[in-house]
Amino acid sequence: MNNVTKMRIAKPASEVFEAIVDPAKMSNYWFSSGSARLEAGETITWRYEEYGAVVDIKVLEVEENKKIVFAGGANGEGNVVTIQLHKELDTNHASTIIEVTESGFDENDENLIALLLDNKEGWVYMLTSLKAYMEFGVTNLRASLVK
Amino acid sequence: MNNVTKMRIAKPASEVFEAIVDPAKMSNYWFSSGSARLEAGETITWRYEEYGAVVDIKVLEVEENKKIVFAGGANGEGNVVTIQLHKELDTNHASTIIEVTESGFDENDENLIALLLDNKEGWVYMLTSLKAYMEFGVTNLRASLVK
Repeated sequence: MNNVTKMRIAKPASEVFEAIVDPAKMSNYWFSSGSARLEAGETITWRYEEYGAVVDIKVLEVEENKKIVFAGGANGEGNVVTIQLHKELDTNHASTIIEVTESGFDENDENLIALLLDNKEGWVYMLTSLKAYMEFGVTNLRASLVK
Repeated sequence: MNNVTKMRIAKPASEVFEAIVDPAKMSNYWFSSGSARLEAGETITWRYEEYGAVVDIKVLEVEENKKIVFAGGANGEGNVVTIQLHKELDTNHASTIIEVTESGFDENDENLIALLLDNKEGWVYMLTSLKAYMEFGVTNLRASLVK
C-alpha cells in the first residue's frame, strides 16, 4: 500500500534537489529545521516547531539531482519515502516533475484510510508549498494546515 | 464517509468568501472558468481547461461570508461539498479557517481508497493555492498536479 503524488515545478532538477537536501532551504516550505544535509547513511532530525513535531529519518539513498530515499525512524524502521526528480522534455524552459512515493502502510491497520489520507494531505501541502517557494519565492505557506 | 480539510488563511472571511463565489477570482487558483457566481439554486458549470474537465454543480445553500454548500451534477445528484468559513479569534489581524467537507462516498465502492485519496489531493491543492493567491497574489500554482 503506498501513496504517490506528483507535481510539476518550473525549475531545473538540480534546484529542486537542493531545495530538498539543504535544511536551510527546506525551512522555507516544509519542516522548520533539519539537523543536517541529506546524505546517504545519515540519520537526520527534522523539527516542525509550529506543530510541536520531531521526526527522525534515516537516509537510505541519494542520487544527485535524481533521487532521494529515506525511511522514518532513527534506524529506518518506518515507512519508506522515495522522491524522484524527472526532467521534462519538450519544453523551452527547464522543468521537473517531482514524484513522491511513500510505502509501508499496513493494509490490515484499522486506521488505514485515515493514515493514508493524512499522509496524502501532508505530501500535497509540501509539494504545493515547494512549488510556491521555488517559482514565486513564497516562504510563508507552511504551518497552516489545521488538524 | 467524508473528507475534511482545513486551512488557515490570513484574510477576513468576507474576502475568502468572494474568492470562492466569484468565478473571475476562482480562476486564479482553481478551475479556469465558472459560468456564474455561486448563488443558491443555481446550476454552475466549471471548466478546468488544462485537465480537459467540465463539471456541473448545483448550489444548495449560500450564507454570505460563512457557508457555501453545493452538490456535484446539474441536478445535485453527486457528492455534497460544504465549505465553512470560521473567523479566528485572539489574533490582531483578521484571519479565517476555511473548512471543506466532501461527503457521499460509497463505503462499499471497491475503489473507495483511491477515490478518497484523489479527492483529498484535490482539496489540499485547492486550499494551498487559494492561500497563496489571497496572501501573496500568486496566480500560477494551479494545473500542475500530475496524474
